Amino acid sequence: VNVLIVFAHPEPRSFNGALRDVAVATLRADGHEVEVSDLYAAGFKAVADADDFALRADSTYLCIDLEQAAAQEAGTISPDIRAEQGKVARADLVVLQFPLWWFGPPAILKGWFDRVFTRGFGYRSGCKYDTGLMRGKRAMLSVTTGTSADTYAADGIDGGILDILWPIHNGLLRYTGFEVHAPNLVHMPHRMSDTERAAELQHYASLLHQIDDQPTLFFHPSSDYGTDERLLAHVTPASGFQHRAKQPSPIDQDGPS
Amino acid sequence: VNVLIVFAHPEPRSFNGALRDVAVATLRADGHEVEVSDLYAAGFKAVADADDFALRADSTYLCIDLEQAAAQEAGTISPDIRAEQGKVARADLVVLQFPLWWFGPPAILKGWFDRVFTRGFGYRSGCKYDTGLMRGKRAMLSVTTGTSADTYAADGIDGGILDILWPIHNGLLRYTGFEVHAPNLVHMPHRMSDTERAAELQHYASLLHQIDDQPTLFFHPSSDYGTDERLLAHVTPASGFQHRAKQPSPIDQDGPS
Repeated sequence: VNVLIVFAHPEPRSFNGALRDVAVATLRADGHEVEVSDLYAAGFKAVADADDFALRADSTYLCIDLEQAAAQEAGTISPDIRAEQGKVARADLVVLQFPLWWFGPPAILKGWFDRVFTRGFGYRSGCKYDTGLMRGKRAMLSVTTGTSADTYAADGIDGGILDILWPIHNGLLRYTGFEVHAPNLVHMPHRMSDTERAAELQHYASLLHQIDDQPTLFFHPSSDYGTDERLLAHVTPASGFQHRAKQPSPIDQDGPS
Repeated sequence: VNVLIVFAHPEPRSFNGALRDVAVATLRADGHEVEVSDLYAAGFKAVADADDFALRADSTYLCIDLEQAAAQEAGTISPDIRAEQGKVARADLVVLQFPLWWFGPPAILKGWFDRVFTRGFGYRSGCKYDTGLMRGKRAMLSVTTGTSADTYAADGIDGGILDILWPIHNGLLRYTGFEVHAPNLVHMPHRMSDTERAAELQHYASLLHQIDDQPTLFFHPSSDYGTDERLLAHVTPASGFQHRAKQPSPIDQDGPS
């Protein structure tokens, strides 16, 4: 199959770089076509702004999604965006390789989401989740963290890692129609011995070697939702993230202490 | 008090711009000192990379946090970062004004997190959460969304909005020591009538006028955690985000359908 690896780390010789290299080598050895978007090496523009639109639909007021839709339709979207969209369109599997910075993707990767998944390419009216424009494609995150697996446990001080990744898993990938594999996570590679790092790379190679058998994440199908887009009364929340409003509210009405 | 408003929208005349303007006017009328970081207007550099460090601690291998720590100590951190750090240091209250794009902050604001909250300024060994370097300061998000409050309900198709904002509320703000107010949320301002938008602005002005009485978010104190940084057995999770591992796992071991 065709694989796109989006790589978002400033140091090619980092552990993130090693994970990317292992992925490229493993997938190619298995006969897959692999493209890599090395965002730092390309100097990828992170910020969605007026410069993305050579011809403006409305030159007096910048509404990003309306300009995106107009530029997609007219074929005037910025060439760097079009190139990335071409890679996504060709891919059957998209792998995002990045370090977790402040509980999210590095800005250069967030910018790749903001700029590449335009209205018109990434979504449009009536096309989201089950009817998303990327349906038929799969995606997977490969993420390193700076703190331990315990801190990212569901009852850890940082919060559950799958919950923290929901904005990407559900918000970008499932929203646009991807089927999403469970992520490959490596905690604190900077504290590992060379032997431990080699074992992690070997584990990742094995995972990719059997990518078609890798677990996927469950998201409720659209039939589980009412017209208000909330889970129907008889549906038990099963995404691990959604819940009935029975959990404690974190809002302390007393104000600052 | 001193207030810093960080504004991350490309169109100054947008509803986000109106919220910013209302905040500036209201807070100044109440006698507060207000600074604004208009990230788009400033052309703020979003991407943390080698250019942030005029003098490199290690010129052969780029490790962002080690370079940040060295540059903070030597006083050689990039001038645009130092300017933003000065604003944060002066502020008693930091307000982040942004539209939710792909379930997260626009890349230019994520880059502000990545670049400004350096190792050495934003955190350092032994200084996080209750002992965070920003303790004594407060912060609040003011966020617009493209879809309805129902979609962002806890059982909505997009997931609970407070859960989606956890990476910022807990991951950046609480992690670095801020006390965090409940966010000001405006859903789908683009679909509102002028009257409805005016009411939202009035609501926000009232909220800011009584900012000291605004609810805050609960985060577990460090005494609730064991040495493994997981909640102690007798502590009931009360952040609304953390939970015991009794929830369903979203990982479907059967692999792709």
